[in-house]
Amino acid sequence: MTDAWIGETLYDGWQQRFRVRQELARTKSAFQDIVVFESETHGRVLVLDGVIQITEGDEFVYQEMLTHVPLLAHGDARSVLIIGAGDGGVLRRVLQHRGVTRAVMVEIDGEVIDLSKRFLPGIAGDAWTDPRAEVIVGDGIDYVARAETASVDVIIVDSTDPIGVGEVLFTDSFYEHCARILTPNGIVVNQCGVPFMQADELRETSLRRARFFPHVSAYVAAVPTYVGGFMTLGVAAKGGNPAVHPVETIRARAEAAGILGTTGYWTPEIHAGAFNLPPYIARNLPIAGA
Amino acid sequence: MTDAWIGETLYDGWQQRFRVRQELARTKSAFQDIVVFESETHGRVLVLDGVIQITEGDEFVYQEMLTHVPLLAHGDARSVLIIGAGDGGVLRRVLQHRGVTRAVMVEIDGEVIDLSKRFLPGIAGDAWTDPRAEVIVGDGIDYVARAETASVDVIIVDSTDPIGVGEVLFTDSFYEHCARILTPNGIVVNQCGVPFMQADELRETSLRRARFFPHVSAYVAAVPTYVGGFMTLGVAAKGGNPAVHPVETIRARAEAAGILGTTGYWTPEIHAGAFNLPPYIARNLPIAGA
Repeated sequence: MTDAWIGETLYDGWQQRFRVRQELARTKSAFQDIVVFESETHGRVLVLDGVIQITEGDEFVYQEMLTHVPLLAHGDARSVLIIGAGDGGVLRRVLQHRGVTRAVMVEIDGEVIDLSKRFLPGIAGDAWTDPRAEVIVGDGIDYVARAETASVDVIIVDSTDPIGVGEVLFTDSFYEHCARILTPNGIVVNQCGVPFMQADELRETSLRRARFFPHVSAYVAAVPTYVGGFMTLGVAAKGGNPAVHPVETIRARAEAAGILGTTGYWTPEIHAGAFNLPPYIARNLPIAGA
Repeated sequence: MTDAWIGETLYDGWQQRFRVRQELARTKSAFQDIVVFESETHGRVLVLDGVIQITEGDEFVYQEMLTHVPLLAHGDARSVLIIGAGDGGVLRRVLQHRGVTRAVMVEIDGEVIDLSKRFLPGIAGDAWTDPRAEVIVGDGIDYVARAETASVDVIIVDSTDPIGVGEVLFTDSFYEHCARILTPNGIVVNQCGVPFMQADELRETSLRRARFFPHVSAYVAAVPTYVGGFMTLGVAAKGGNPAVHPVETIRARAEAAGILGTTGYWTPEIHAGAFNLPPYIARNLPIAGA
């Protein structure tokens, strides 16, 4: 084993670090520092501005929960917009759903896509060439500002934390446009960090979402390399409350969509249970049940 | 901020490390290396043989799930045996339950108790002097071998991983004695590691528990500093399946016991949902549903 380590620089006083088998890429794009390396323990790892984005070993947890929960809570998602997610893992999960006819992915940093295609090909699989997929290298906020009103059923925001390049994806203006371009039962989901370490992120972005959506809630996922216990995924819905579907409804929808039995983390029970927040997280969601 | 760090040595290729504000104790007991330090991010931290045991910041997650789930799944626990847990946090949670008349704690390493009383007094609170508590410095396996048949309602094993001093607490002989000393509806729970990193631990110990108990299952908790996603807590029961209680039953029991509203992680919904394992974990529980 080598004795080279790469450590995450997300927090000043607490760090996860990986023993590096081989560094595969290290570059500075127009937007951020990008590193891809092969770890001893988690397969290949993508790092943006010093923050772990995805590892081959545990990406299924995050991708499944970020994708299957909003699509199955919606129940009839045909048109899906993905913002960020340059590794292609969300796109792949969206395209697993039989009912999806169109998946547009807007990633601001083309170098993330290029490096993912080259070094992390298993994460997107065949998604890049699926005829239902359209991959745009561009600005997500710009895209939502121009997109047609009531044209999208589900928006998935797979952004970095609200620092650096991802910051605009947490603004009032962004959510206002999301509300406009969603269909009447539309849902938007975005990652809201790890409340044990980043409690403000869920609180502040939930308050923003509540300005433009009647239903705002959040659900949890235990992603191994987003260290700090549960991460939260914030949900806002124009129509019915997406948090209330019984397990059997979700199971039936997943079966129809072709999802049942394909997952490593998501199940109908985990889907329904993920909206039950521990009190230490719920207290950062001031508008719970709104 | 200082630039001194203490890193966990549990895994060869992946590590969490804490920036150290102040080292409070570093000693070698008859059983293990013990370090207590003040971190920048998680309050005070107890480390045994290089493995993070507890931090003041997140101890509530582990202690609540290790204690309240078996006691409320049992429903009428009066006599509780705790093995390990030298910091006193489990003892404190057990004594919160109004129905508990006796809580015996057997910790092999008296130095862990002494250092916890000195440097982590908030974790046990008043538990050490509760008249219902008996704290024994001794060998857990020896205690269960001598204890009276059918004398204990719930056994909580808060051990280290099955390496070093904790190894005997995962043996056939240990579980056989647990089954003998438990009352007819008795339950034993023990921590089974983080399956994403330590899949064998849940698998092997579940197979062992299944030799002596009709019901063997596991539930999950997302403990921030047991990094790697969900940790699992293995349950074995002599009587009814402890995994099947509806949320309303658990809520009613928690209210009667005085637990409702006192927790930061545990809720009746989380209690019931924690038995729904993600597929990547369930596949390490070969006797699920047995």
